[in-house]
Amino acid sequence: MQIDLDTFSAMFDGPDLREVSFLGGRPRFVLRSSMFERDELESLCATARAIRSLDAHEQGARLLERVLHRKRVLHLFAQPSTRTCESFATATARLGGSARVLQDLSATSFVKGETIRDTAQVWAASFDLLVLRHPDDRFVLQCAHSLALGPHTMPMISAGTGTLEHPTQGLLDVFTLLDSLGSLDGRSVAIVGDTSRNRCARSLATLLSRFEQIRIAFVSPPEFEPEQALLESLTARGVRVELHHHLGPLLAAHGESLDAIYVTRLQQEWDEGEAALLGTSPGLVLDPGYRRFLRPSCRILHPLPRVNELPTEWDDHPGFLIWDQVRNGIWARAALIATLVGADAGLREATGA
Amino acid sequence: MQIDLDTFSAMFDGPDLREVSFLGGRPRFVLRSSMFERDELESLCATARAIRSLDAHEQGARLLERVLHRKRVLHLFAQPSTRTCESFATATARLGGSARVLQDLSATSFVKGETIRDTAQVWAASFDLLVLRHPDDRFVLQCAHSLALGPHTMPMISAGTGTLEHPTQGLLDVFTLLDSLGSLDGRSVAIVGDTSRNRCARSLATLLSRFEQIRIAFVSPPEFEPEQALLESLTARGVRVELHHHLGPLLAAHGESLDAIYVTRLQQEWDEGEAALLGTSPGLVLDPGYRRFLRPSCRILHPLPRVNELPTEWDDHPGFLIWDQVRNGIWARAALIATLVGADAGLREATGA
Amino acid sequence: MQIDLDTFSAMFDGPDLREVSFLGGRPRFVLRSSMFERDELESLCATARAIRSLDAHEQGARLLERVLHRKRVLHLFAQPSTRTCESFATATARLGGSARVLQDLSATSFVKGETIRDTAQVWAASFDLLVLRHPDDRFVLQCAHSLALGPHTMPMISAGTGTLEHPTQGLLDVFTLLDSLGSLDGRSVAIVGDTSRNRCARSLATLLSRFEQIRIAFVSPPEFEPEQALLESLTARGVRVELHHHLGPLLAAHGESLDAIYVTRLQQEWDEGEAALLGTSPGLVLDPGYRRFLRPSCRILHPLPRVNELPTEWDDHPGFLIWDQVRNGIWARAALIATLVGADAGLREATGA
Repeated sequence: MQIDLDTFSAMFDGPDLREVSFLGGRPRFVLRSSMFERDELESLCATARAIRSLDAHEQGARLLERVLHRKRVLHLFAQPSTRTCESFATATARLGGSARVLQDLSATSFVKGETIRDTAQVWAASFDLLVLRHPDDRFVLQCAHSLALGPHTMPMISAGTGTLEHPTQGLLDVFTLLDSLGSLDGRSVAIVGDTSRNRCARSLATLLSRFEQIRIAFVSPPEFEPEQALLESLTARGVRVELHHHLGPLLAAHGESLDAIYVTRLQQEWDEGEAALLGTSPGLVLDPGYRRFLRPSCRILHPLPRVNELPTEWDDHPGFLIWDQVRNGIWARAALIATLVGADAGLREATGA
Repeated sequence: MQIDLDTFSAMFDGPDLREVSFLGGRPRFVLRSSMFERDELESLCATARAIRSLDAHEQGARLLERVLHRKRVLHLFAQPSTRTCESFATATARLGGSARVLQDLSATSFVKGETIRDTAQVWAASFDLLVLRHPDDRFVLQCAHSLALGPHTMPMISAGTGTLEHPTQGLLDVFTLLDSLGSLDGRSVAIVGDTSRNRCARSLATLLSRFEQIRIAFVSPPEFEPEQALLESLTARGVRVELHHHLGPLLAAHGESLDAIYVTRLQQEWDEGEAALLGTSPGLVLDPGYRRFLRPSCRILHPLPRVNELPTEWDDHPGFLIWDQVRNGIWARAALIATLVGADAGLREATGA
Repeated sequence: MQIDLDTFSAMFDGPDLREVSFLGGRPRFVLRSSMFERDELESLCATARAIRSLDAHEQGARLLERVLHRKRVLHLFAQPSTRTCESFATATARLGGSARVLQDLSATSFVKGETIRDTAQVWAASFDLLVLRHPDDRFVLQCAHSLALGPHTMPMISAGTGTLEHPTQGLLDVFTLLDSLGSLDGRSVAIVGDTSRNRCARSLATLLSRFEQIRIAFVSPPEFEPEQALLESLTARGVRVELHHHLGPLLAAHGESLDAIYVTRLQQEWDEGEAALLGTSPGLVLDPGYRRFLRPSCRILHPLPRVNELPTEWDDHPGFLIWDQVRNGIWARAALIATLVGADAGLREATGA
């Protein structure tokens, strides 16, 4: 492939997304949630369920360990994220692979002025899969471009990019909802937080739009409402979208009809100056008093870490799924990796799924 | 378990220590040396000896590798400690487990304001055992509390807490002494250093008190003598305790009767201001000239790192056990881990121990 | 061995080099390129080739994994070097060993005032092989000295020492040249960069001198010409050496006769003050326009990272071997490790090499 970087990058944000993201029917560069359609999401969730079930007994665990046998996975996290990093590393271990974690780019040759292309080639000579978290989407695209050019190459999964995307978080959230609710068609979900800069919120909304008759109520500060492009892509998929600024009135009026509430943290680390001092706006806190507005079966999710927007009084709510999300992160990521290396069908068959 | 943090924490420092530290007869939270009684110490030492012997041949090593097969151990070291950390990681590897080492808490979600409870739950979803070094005992207790609450849980071993406790160092020291001396009853030991803030010294004294007719001579600066609570717990166990401030006169008068001298470093990193400039007080240095006061069979131990309190002239003394301590640290920690997962009896039987 | 540090260190830079570097016919301390003679280099290259070939199929890979079965390798990198570090770690993994990477000496007990001797003994209790990068050759020698004294010991490989030595880089460069050219006798090589402080350049020149009728043209700034000792050792081995300051005139006149050009980066990180501002001197850049002076078969090598001294226009040159070097680094290092543990002959026989 001799395509230049700008053309390559543009493919990820236009109609060529699937062409550049898949190779031979398998995901190759997992940078955008929107690369997945419904059947792929359902297949990934079925694989995640199969892996969880195989992992529970000795013979199944041995089968899992064949998936990445002798493979080495580089987990490169340029931003602090124990949670996502350990989740990926655990998934890698469950599949029998060897996980290498690098959390400090200052130990790399970038400090000596090396290009991303050279560095990515060096990584690809030593590793079989790259899991990359980086604040700069351009950096992520340059890595993918170099891996596409070769000669050394490997597939790559984004583990979160700036405020933009967090496809595997979206995947584990959809898996958790699907696993708990049985089906997603016709579901009504509130997504709470400063959506325009919350990658988890946006990735989830995008993936939900792959199902039928979805309703999403975004609850965010006026200045961080979902951007127009996201809203358009959702409505183009038939999602009924509402925008709100305060949780209380919404739940008082329509809490009974909600199947799930997805609470996120105000992204204070992105702020400089005054905005950083705001803390979580009271209108976006899931107050314990709102419990009376919700069905006991309403699911409560949060991508973690949480600060005060989801008080611990919710931890004993029957629909509280946060700890399930954490475990499901391992299975969903393992499912994605197994799909990348073409082992997913075999795992599903092994459990009759 | 729905016990609150304060009640839970108090259990570790009162009569409920064993109740909160063991579960189903196995150690679950290893935070305090004093949780162990004599029969448990002897059993741990027998297990350590069995592991050392099994590790020496192929078939035995394969047996060891079953103990933590597919288990992942998180080694979280919030204070620099290559020595203890690598010792634990090696023990984990010998038992077939996978070791993950985190030495920088700034890469975790604490920087985003997450509670210890949430973080501990996330760890417990990915790992099977937590080895934790942290300067703050309160942090350690909060972790244990969260693991006790669940839903995700795992056992936990303290790898050193502030100035307070270092149970596995005490364990390896007792193992080294028992292994070398054959029995500990009736032994006379000098413990040298600023005892009131040396966790190694205190953990060793506590464990020695589990044996009969022990005599301990503490040699420390007047301002860092053992605290009253430690002295009382020792004498309550029948230990004959003496307090000294200078090694020279003690050894000149009674060196012949000593079975072991345990030298420790002045804990200068805890000091601020002038105290940090003191260096090791001359009265606490094991001067090479003292050699003539000791039996050649007198054991010399040091938890390392040493600065100048144990000069290298001692390295060829027949009783010099420092390098044995280092190796024994691996076996003693492996024995503790094997006991936590209930594999210890099988290992002892495999060697006829 | 009771030899003191100064005597021990001196052996590495005099006629006793081989005596101190080998033990029982196997390399024990790989600190100096010049420890290797031609037959050893050819044997290492044959082993590297065997390993590359074995790694390509399941049965061969299983054979490789026996080499370091249950062995743990400590990769201690006191200077940033993802490239070399990951190359070694990958080699370790290919041979079935467990790689531990430490890149921050501040986490070790040195900060508490511990001696290198004590620290090295502690490492040797936990690990089976030490791979060490350190800016200070004296530190490296002290480690080796402690490992020679025992009681705990392990072999050791330098992964680069200050400006002085980078023996495994030299080894992979010779392997890459030999593998690509078939033989090295009579070859003509240009080595470009500030040679007097480039450890890669010097290690390569030293190893090339083990072959017959070698010609080396050094191209360097006048102030960083090869030091006299290197030049003398090369000419003593029959190498025909030329010194140049500008690539252009050299290539215009004699480019046709060159078998390989080895470009290196100006070692700007060593500089303080004005020299750091220089960037790569234009006379040392392999200008794309020089392509017309070279045979298409002329090999282009670079130890990486590169800045602007080897423009990317060269990446499609038929002799461009940089990506091969990266992969060969894994095989060459694995070959060296296999030789250290005495497994090399078995691997070569397994492939009929």
